[in-house]
Amino acid sequence: MSNSELPVKVADWKRLALSKRVSTFNKIPKDWLLPIEQASQYTETNPISVLDVPRTCGILTQKELEITETHDATDLVALMVKGELSSIEVTTAFCKRAAIAHQTTNCLTEIMIDQALARANECDEFLKKEGRPVGPLHGLPISLKDSFNVKGVQSTIGYVSFITNPPTTTNSAVVQILFEAGAVFYVKTNIPQTMMTADSHNNIFGRTLNPHNLTLTAGGSTGGEASLIAMNGSVLGVATDIAGSNRIPALCCGISSIKPSASRVPFAGGVPPGRLGSPGQILPVIGPCGRSIRDYELFLRTIVSSQPWNLDPMALNIPWRTPDAGLREKKLRFGLIRSTPSRPLHPPIARALHSAAMSLKAAGHNIVLLDEKIGDMYADVELAWKYFMLDPSGTPFQHLRASGEDPIPSLKISGWPELSSWKPSLDTLWDMNVQRASVLKKYQNLFVSEGLDAILMPGYQAVAPGHDTYGLPIYTALVNLLDYPAGILPHGKADKNADAEFLKESVKYEPAYNSEAAEGMPAHIQVVGKPLMDEELLEIMMVVETVLKRNA
Amino acid sequence: MSNSELPVKVADWKRLALSKRVSTFNKIPKDWLLPIEQASQYTETNPISVLDVPRTCGILTQKELEITETHDATDLVALMVKGELSSIEVTTAFCKRAAIAHQTTNCLTEIMIDQALARANECDEFLKKEGRPVGPLHGLPISLKDSFNVKGVQSTIGYVSFITNPPTTTNSAVVQILFEAGAVFYVKTNIPQTMMTADSHNNIFGRTLNPHNLTLTAGGSTGGEASLIAMNGSVLGVATDIAGSNRIPALCCGISSIKPSASRVPFAGGVPPGRLGSPGQILPVIGPCGRSIRDYELFLRTIVSSQPWNLDPMALNIPWRTPDAGLREKKLRFGLIRSTPSRPLHPPIARALHSAAMSLKAAGHNIVLLDEKIGDMYADVELAWKYFMLDPSGTPFQHLRASGEDPIPSLKISGWPELSSWKPSLDTLWDMNVQRASVLKKYQNLFVSEGLDAILMPGYQAVAPGHDTYGLPIYTALVNLLDYPAGILPHGKADKNADAEFLKESVKYEPAYNSEAAEGMPAHIQVVGKPLMDEELLEIMMVVETVLKRNA
Repeated sequence: MSNSELPVKVADWKRLALSKRVSTFNKIPKDWLLPIEQASQYTETNPISVLDVPRTCGILTQKELEITETHDATDLVALMVKGELSSIEVTTAFCKRAAIAHQTTNCLTEIMIDQALARANECDEFLKKEGRPVGPLHGLPISLKDSFNVKGVQSTIGYVSFITNPPTTTNSAVVQILFEAGAVFYVKTNIPQTMMTADSHNNIFGRTLNPHNLTLTAGGSTGGEASLIAMNGSVLGVATDIAGSNRIPALCCGISSIKPSASRVPFAGGVPPGRLGSPGQILPVIGPCGRSIRDYELFLRTIVSSQPWNLDPMALNIPWRTPDAGLREKKLRFGLIRSTPSRPLHPPIARALHSAAMSLKAAGHNIVLLDEKIGDMYADVELAWKYFMLDPSGTPFQHLRASGEDPIPSLKISGWPELSSWKPSLDTLWDMNVQRASVLKKYQNLFVSEGLDAILMPGYQAVAPGHDTYGLPIYTALVNLLDYPAGILPHGKADKNADAEFLKESVKYEPAYNSEAAEGMPAHIQVVGKPLMDEELLEIMMVVETVLKRNA
Repeated sequence: MSNSELPVKVADWKRLALSKRVSTFNKIPKDWLLPIEQASQYTETNPISVLDVPRTCGILTQKELEITETHDATDLVALMVKGELSSIEVTTAFCKRAAIAHQTTNCLTEIMIDQALARANECDEFLKKEGRPVGPLHGLPISLKDSFNVKGVQSTIGYVSFITNPPTTTNSAVVQILFEAGAVFYVKTNIPQTMMTADSHNNIFGRTLNPHNLTLTAGGSTGGEASLIAMNGSVLGVATDIAGSNRIPALCCGISSIKPSASRVPFAGGVPPGRLGSPGQILPVIGPCGRSIRDYELFLRTIVSSQPWNLDPMALNIPWRTPDAGLREKKLRFGLIRSTPSRPLHPPIARALHSAAMSLKAAGHNIVLLDEKIGDMYADVELAWKYFMLDPSGTPFQHLRASGEDPIPSLKISGWPELSSWKPSLDTLWDMNVQRASVLKKYQNLFVSEGLDAILMPGYQAVAPGHDTYGLPIYTALVNLLDYPAGILPHGKADKNADAEFLKESVKYEPAYNSEAAEGMPAHIQVVGKPLMDEELLEIMMVVETVLKRNA
């Protein structure tokens, strides 16, 4: 009997989903639980910030607060290698804080405290005994999106039908590399059903909330990570991105992230939400999210230097390069894309982008306006959507039918309106590839003719919107279509008074602009580099990060 | 009226084809023509070698013979930069010799003597005036497969329906880069109709013959180049390869060649024989053919160092690396594939491969036998063939119908027998990609688990066979499926007495083994490197080249 013939009753899939959710929750030690009357107020309809809960709840010690708030990953590793902190201390602190984050924003899918502490102990003992670190990520707790496999742990990726799968017996390639470099895995994080919407919501684990304002989306598909990191429940997370999945949650939750060029980080060994073997020209990409660009450099250098092409034949054999030292001193040339006609920028994002460009200009860098040279992105990104619709067998929906579970609400608005009756065909795919080549040529010409080092643009037209209202991710998916490396940097916060001067009466904002709901929410910029020049993009983003911090 | 409705008469396309062929021939200066009674004996049914015709015909001076025979491209450039030879002298010598090659083997499609001499003069004047070379290929005559575009010259690629196209107005990306590096273009060379067979034969230019024995194939699709180079009518040629098109002619004509990893040499701006936008996972690759591996290093380094990704967005942004200096001194580990069951090696190739392996072993390198670990290649290469059959509109045959011309005979045997009724579909393509991933994994595992630096294998099971009998290119197409860099080195010659001990009574040779026809024909080996490690493959091939020369 095939899965689709299973006589499933609604009660069955709901009971199954609940049992899994409860089993995760029960892995939180009793001492780390918030009082029930407190925890019960953290719902998707309560417009409060929960960012200060870890500090006020009394569960973390002063030292644990300091460990989880003060350092980036590079710092923490250095402190552990010097023996000023132990991995046990650091891991315990992040486990506790992740537990609080989960109770406020519902960001976790798997909790692995015992395994994490055993591993942390192993790292501490190794250092003591050998007098050297396990590797460049010695003792560092790293959080993982649920789609990564960790030996002995489940990867349900939010499909009820996957709950009956046994725990995995192998690590994803990237997990194996991080492990060998010294990482400690302690939690996996929440994602949307199908991983193709911007709301990290599924029938097993429910919905992840935005810690800045629980009524707003945490973004997706790596929403659990971004929410956890914004809560300082993780210092470094591992995400994936095919239309913005690592950048959307970052910009919603006010953290930073990087989508490298495809296939530099090995993708093998994870659990795909859809069918393997896509003939499309957009590949899913693994990248880090967290607190600092130098951490992403550490992350990517560690992975690429491990020769991941020996683990995953789809990973590109491109050794990690040390970019030209002059790049950090150079006056850079940034192309600036301020908007695309179909998705005008909400005032807070227009102001953030303007402020970033002005700060860079004031620091001596050059800004070249590209708005008139790129046409409306909507048509280009429609092509990306066609690539996402190439599976004639609709595999994600087979996974839903296998349990009888309901589709989540945001799936309804994640389709491309003009493509509702579009059907893919082999013949069309040839023409799509020709069309993609012309989009690539357009942006390549821009980079070459304008002598650009990077492009500065929005990652989304707004700050985090309400649940199930994010819509199409035009500004992020364009970059996936191009396969250019890109990152998100948080920059400023929505401020209705300051933002007012960027309000345009003549445009239709989508989603609607609500200055009250947006107030105080983090704004952002997106920085886009040249293809396969990930090393250079990181350098450039460190320059931008420094300039923005100086002007914050 | 669409092309397919044109009321074409047989006489029309034949007349059109002939007029183009004659117009090319008429570009040979009268003084360089062989006597008609001599030229008329060079037919595809006359089993003679024409290799000594340039030396005996009296058309080239002693110095021109020396220029065209003695040096590789690296040497010639050095001599021109030092002023010991002028580009005019070198270009004239190769133009003359190419004209003789054409009259004996029918290897050319376009002859550009006037443009070449003007360009050579420009290079000489530049050097005189500026005291420095134009670039790393200063003044060097380079021959081009017909599918490359040279401004002002036609690219008919053997389709009669393309004869009425005007001369092209732009250079292919690779042509532009070579030009800027100092190259002189003087001839384009013959290819098969559709470029998907191993016989360089079409209705415009006729059939290119093998200069070692005119009754044997020169190979394809870059057959004109290999024949020209074997005649010393070119020192360095530019080829393409999607199933073996740069390696098949090389091994048939006794020259060397390299197929780099896909997309390191920019492919943009040429004339494709089929439809653009293939969703298949096998890309056509540009590579050099000629006389020495160090020339290919010069060629590839020059191209990649020019940042070809700024001309062609499909070219990979991977800077040229200097491989670890230790590689040349190291004892290398070679995997050895001696045969695949469905295509047992003819005795001359079995002996060449055995001799190469023994020589490498004697030089201290390690040989690891892989025969039992790879299964029959036939099934893996069938997958490659499916990728070649993905165009539902059969574009190459549309190009044939547009003029009404006949298909060439070898097209009948270039299909995959088991796929004669196979039809591609989008759904199948997903499964094909999954299957390809498993083939990649198999060979990656071999490289990693055995610690291999390269694989030694045949490029074909035989020496050049008779016209229209080459069959399926199993040993070369496997490497395209993998997208591993690979090259051909000539090694030894068929010798029926020495070969006898490699004869197996129990196997069925395909094509049939005929020791008399094979006698004296060049044998070869294929060396296969790791993906994207083109720099390392060149170093390894230089090591092999040196060992084989020492033992020749």
